Amino acid sequence: MMSKGRVLSIQSHVAFGYVGGKAAVFPLQCLGYDVDVVNTVNFSNHSGTNPAGYGRFGGSRANAAELSYIFEMMEKNSLLSPDRLLTGYIPGGEALAAVTDLARKLRKRNPELLYLLDPVLGDAGKLYVSPDVIPIYRAMLPLASIITPNWFEVEVLTDVKITDLLSLRRAVKILHEEYSVPNVVVSSIPLKAWLKDALPRELQPPPGEHDPDVDFLLCIVSSVDLPSKSGALSTVHTRVVPCIPGYFSGVGDLFSALVLAHYERSPALNHVQTNHISNGITYDTPISHAVSQAIAKTHAILTITHQHAMSLPEEERLPTDEELDEVEPDRQVRRMKGRELRIIQGQDIIRGNAGLDSGRMDLWANFWDAK
Amino acid sequence: MMSKGRVLSIQSHVAFGYVGGKAAVFPLQCLGYDVDVVNTVNFSNHSGTNPAGYGRFGGSRANAAELSYIFEMMEKNSLLSPDRLLTGYIPGGEALAAVTDLARKLRKRNPELLYLLDPVLGDAGKLYVSPDVIPIYRAMLPLASIITPNWFEVEVLTDVKITDLLSLRRAVKILHEEYSVPNVVVSSIPLKAWLKDALPRELQPPPGEHDPDVDFLLCIVSSVDLPSKSGALSTVHTRVVPCIPGYFSGVGDLFSALVLAHYERSPALNHVQTNHISNGITYDTPISHAVSQAIAKTHAILTITHQHAMSLPEEERLPTDEELDEVEPDRQVRRMKGRELRIIQGQDIIRGNAGLDSGRMDLWANFWDAK
Repeated sequence: MMSKGRVLSIQSHVAFGYVGGKAAVFPLQCLGYDVDVVNTVNFSNHSGTNPAGYGRFGGSRANAAELSYIFEMMEKNSLLSPDRLLTGYIPGGEALAAVTDLARKLRKRNPELLYLLDPVLGDAGKLYVSPDVIPIYRAMLPLASIITPNWFEVEVLTDVKITDLLSLRRAVKILHEEYSVPNVVVSSIPLKAWLKDALPRELQPPPGEHDPDVDFLLCIVSSVDLPSKSGALSTVHTRVVPCIPGYFSGVGDLFSALVLAHYERSPALNHVQTNHISNGITYDTPISHAVSQAIAKTHAILTITHQHAMSLPEEERLPTDEELDEVEPDRQVRRMKGRELRIIQGQDIIRGNAGLDSGRMDLWANFWDAK
Repeated sequence: MMSKGRVLSIQSHVAFGYVGGKAAVFPLQCLGYDVDVVNTVNFSNHSGTNPAGYGRFGGSRANAAELSYIFEMMEKNSLLSPDRLLTGYIPGGEALAAVTDLARKLRKRNPELLYLLDPVLGDAGKLYVSPDVIPIYRAMLPLASIITPNWFEVEVLTDVKITDLLSLRRAVKILHEEYSVPNVVVSSIPLKAWLKDALPRELQPPPGEHDPDVDFLLCIVSSVDLPSKSGALSTVHTRVVPCIPGYFSGVGDLFSALVLAHYERSPALNHVQTNHISNGITYDTPISHAVSQAIAKTHAILTITHQHAMSLPEEERLPTDEELDEVEPDRQVRRMKGRELRIIQGQDIIRGNAGLDSGRMDLWANFWDAK
């Protein structure tokens, strides 16, 4: 197997389970990347910052000085020349500032560096992190080649509440134009009525073909060549994904790693905007290609994880209930154990050996001018 | 893919390169194991404790309290029930004592626990660690199912200088009888004249068929059913492996992980001593089977690593020269980078998809009574 190159991954580490680096590094390695792994925390298990956490955890955080020292020694040993950079959860503003310094240095040294920044801030309207890291993340955005926020993180970063197509456009525009991000991947946004109505009919989930109780998420990808010509509009792709019920941790970390792994530079592709749909063919951009792979594989891993969770004895798959969990913490722990991502059992999916059809993303041709 | 079970791996972590956990965890994952990963150190790169190190490194060590706290939180969350335990380099006596406490608890809870202890102490006559950890390692031995010392570590643990067949027998006997280790794997011992002469002719490397300048190493495996009946002798297998020139780091860590991954419990197999060579068939024991796989795969990974190193520009493959390295540290760093194990590029070898014939180990039938 040829080497696909070298990724520097900077995120959290847990001994047990699959979040942060444990969800990202193995898939990157399976796909042929040498991965340099810097751990921002060393915890026993996923923390308790959201309902998908274990509630109890232990371990240590690397402070800014420790991170900087590791980077400095790597630098001295000429070990800091990754082709790709992946950053995820980084606790606290000082550590984040140390990573920003590093990203700036790597970007300066290698303008071709492919940097995927996952701005891990929160989800579903709740911040996981202290508000003081928000400006630091904003300052990092111009260094990134790809960002993978969820809809809430887009809101926090742009200060735009996304309630309709106009506000969605405004937020995406801010990320491209004010923050100079060439590839914006809104990893998930609930397909509410306004969003469904805004989508071209052929991109909507087909009515009647699915269980009316199934909710859908939309993944939106917007890419633009930077520095963008004034007024140049981005190319927007979408894909509707059925929601799998229940909380799973590490999904975003896995998804981001797969996006980075599948991104293949192809300078020509970003220039096909004008004839995207000539002859009825929808052309991919490098990012829409990567995201279609990442969506398909992440969804397949989630599906086998869900199936596994459902096969467990009843006491290991108790439904989420924050009140009951409060009274009996083990209840939450048993549930979470059964819902750890099955990335080891699903490694053939990740490698592309499982016969999975990863499909394509759809071009949202009139995103910028639909009424 | 079905889960092969859960391994708890406790060893060092480096950001760059493949030693400790970076050499062990990915192979275990490729072979289907969920691996819980506790990092005893978080370094930038392999340290400088031997000529295969980079000389300069940075990062932090987990102290005993931090390790114990992680174990305690895992325990509280019912996350401490691995099927297999793997321990490698652990810095300092106190951290080692914390790991010993954990191993003792896990062994008590699960008598079926398969514990591979790699007593990382030194190599080629030199200690890497402080002498105060030696008695702690000795106290750990009775907890282990499999140990994988090199010849020097056997000497240190048993206090027997291995100079002939008699002293080799004495050392192996001490490990089985005084320290109650059922499976002793002497991972490598140079095939000096006395050892070659002691081997049955058919187990020696065939004369003339190889380059006379190639050195050989012998791997020796000795297994016994414990508690052993008084006077019961162990079954001994060997395999001769041609030396690949140059220093490579992480080889022992990869080898130990592969031994643990390929060990398959099969209670019948350890009982075939009496008819091992009936009908001319050499029967494997579970450990000889596992070690034959580990030797073949490790050797194949080393071979592609060596080929890669040889393909590099001359300034990246300067020969080992401690004096020149002292004067120009970058010289050593460049060499080491080119010799990092190619486990990512060799993942098909690790998975068994590379058409590698792993062969078998040979039974050394008269080990205990040869003159």
